[in-house]
Amino acid sequence: MEKGVLLYEGKAKQIYQTGNTDELWVSYKDDATAFNGEKKETLTGKARLNNEITSLIFSYLNDNGVDSHFIKRLSETEQLVKKVEIIPLEVVVRNVVAGSMAKRLGIEEGTALEQPIVEFYYKDDALGDPLVTEDHIAILNAATSSDLTILKEKALEVNKHLINLFDNMNVRLIDFKLEFGRTSDNEILLADEISPDTCRLWDKDTNQRFDKDLFRRNLGSLQEGYQEILSRLGGASCTK
Amino acid sequence: MEKGVLLYEGKAKQIYQTGNTDELWVSYKDDATAFNGEKKETLTGKARLNNEITSLIFSYLNDNGVDSHFIKRLSETEQLVKKVEIIPLEVVVRNVVAGSMAKRLGIEEGTALEQPIVEFYYKDDALGDPLVTEDHIAILNAATSSDLTILKEKALEVNKHLINLFDNMNVRLIDFKLEFGRTSDNEILLADEISPDTCRLWDKDTNQRFDKDLFRRNLGSLQEGYQEILSRLGGASCTK
Ligand SMILES: Nc1ncnc2c1ncn2[C@@H]1O[C@H](COP(=O)(O)OP(=O)(O)OP(=O)(O)O)[C@@H](O)[C@H]1O
Ligand SMILES: Nc1ncnc2c1ncn2[C@@H]1O[C@H](COP(=O)(O)OP(=O)(O)OP(=O)(O)O)[C@@H](O)[C@H]1O
Ligand SMILES: [Mg+2]
Ligand SMILES: [Mg+2]
Repeated sequence: MEKGVLLYEGKAKQIYQTGNTDELWVSYKDDATAFNGEKKETLTGKARLNNEITSLIFSYLNDNGVDSHFIKRLSETEQLVKKVEIIPLEVVVRNVVAGSMAKRLGIEEGTALEQPIVEFYYKDDALGDPLVTEDHIAILNAATSSDLTILKEKALEVNKHLINLFDNMNVRLIDFKLEFGRTSDNEILLADEISPDTCRLWDKDTNQRFDKDLFRRNLGSLQEGYQEILSRLGGASCTK
Repeated sequence: MEKGVLLYEGKAKQIYQTGNTDELWVSYKDDATAFNGEKKETLTGKARLNNEITSLIFSYLNDNGVDSHFIKRLSETEQLVKKVEIIPLEVVVRNVVAGSMAKRLGIEEGTALEQPIVEFYYKDDALGDPLVTEDHIAILNAATSSDLTILKEKALEVNKHLINLFDNMNVRLIDFKLEFGRTSDNEILLADEISPDTCRLWDKDTNQRFDKDLFRRNLGSLQEGYQEILSRLGGASCTK
């Protein structure tokens, strides 16, 4: 396994080529950003925490029959994944109203939804990742209507398993963002990361935040929150 | 027919009671507003123009089998309508990308859509009338999913007739906003207004604007544009 050319540097990860054209080397960064990059800080340890947490969660999903791009953890801050062509949509699942939804619709943060909902945001930093309808997605050629059926189904399946996982850790899964991509043989595969950067995670008893809102809203140490999630995941020992 | 108590004063119209609890007296105002009330001006003649245009369009729709709240024109600036309980959604139909959609999705204004689309915005000035998905509408209790099916069907039916009407006037119907309400016997009825305040109307040959973008974007005299629409509607003589 060799680390090749840097293909892409995002806000949270660097993506490198490998000797295998179907595989990528992902290196997590210690950077935290929010509000489309307006707020930015380096937080030592974040790379390791997110790499470990994402690896554990993708492994757990795999054990429960949900495929993803995740192949294996390579080091404290690196992992090997299947290369996909990312579908330019952020697929957001919500169990409880929070964040932009609370603000947008004037509903109090913390209001539980009767059923989980799936939203699509168009991945375009220059446009600020706008919420889009299925008609918009068709017009933008971002995905077909049958792709969307698959994305919603997969997103709700992931939600079901993650609710169980976090519930066992006394954590409430408020909402999360997924990304999907197409493999070289045109399969739609769960990709990117699932971490406290991309989920809202609240302690079930105290509503304490363990996610990126710690950073967005200056609520306390991000690393302590993420470490709590990693500890509750029982991950310290697991090195898959 | 008597004009009763003022029930509601909006940005563009005043709504009065009448002797009949099922009917309202609508008085159009000379005020123009844009950007959620941030830009505001009094434009003499606008009330008459919108009242005449709306009356002609609702009559035309009625002749084509599309019911609405419109009963009759009462004076240059007033009309009688059926009272409804407004469904708190702005139902937007788009044939060509323009305005907020162009900005939101980064698509050039003037791009024709292969098929018309229907969007829903939640009528709430404090929230800035946000775009909403069908799930949001359910959560907000703004309408049921079967209501939405009816709204979309009716909106596309209106679109079909308005495209014909304007096409015969050498005008391109870019997009428009509708409001619907529930009558006392729970029927969903087209309400509010259909005017150059609520439609984008471009000359088919020159792309000249005849709608509220004249005011929003300081493109020229609003009254001249609206008068052009009224003239092309052949409305000067019609007093229904
Ligand atoms: N398996 C994969 N194959 C190819 N690209 C991937 C894969 N998984 C994730 N990516 C992409 O790699 C990048 C990860 O970097 P990062 O999360 O730092 O990006 P970002 O700053 O969030 O920016 P972006 O707006 O591009 O998502 C993202 O563009 C993500 O979509
Ligand atoms: N048939 C009807 N019965 C009851 N209300 C109506 C009817 N038709 C329109 N309305 C409502 O009357 C008001 C018309 O006023 P106007 O267009 O000036 O309001 P507005 O400034 O656009 O504000 P709003 O945000 O309330 O629509 C609107 O609230 C509209 O929804
Ligand atoms: Mg990312
Ligand atoms: Mg109005």
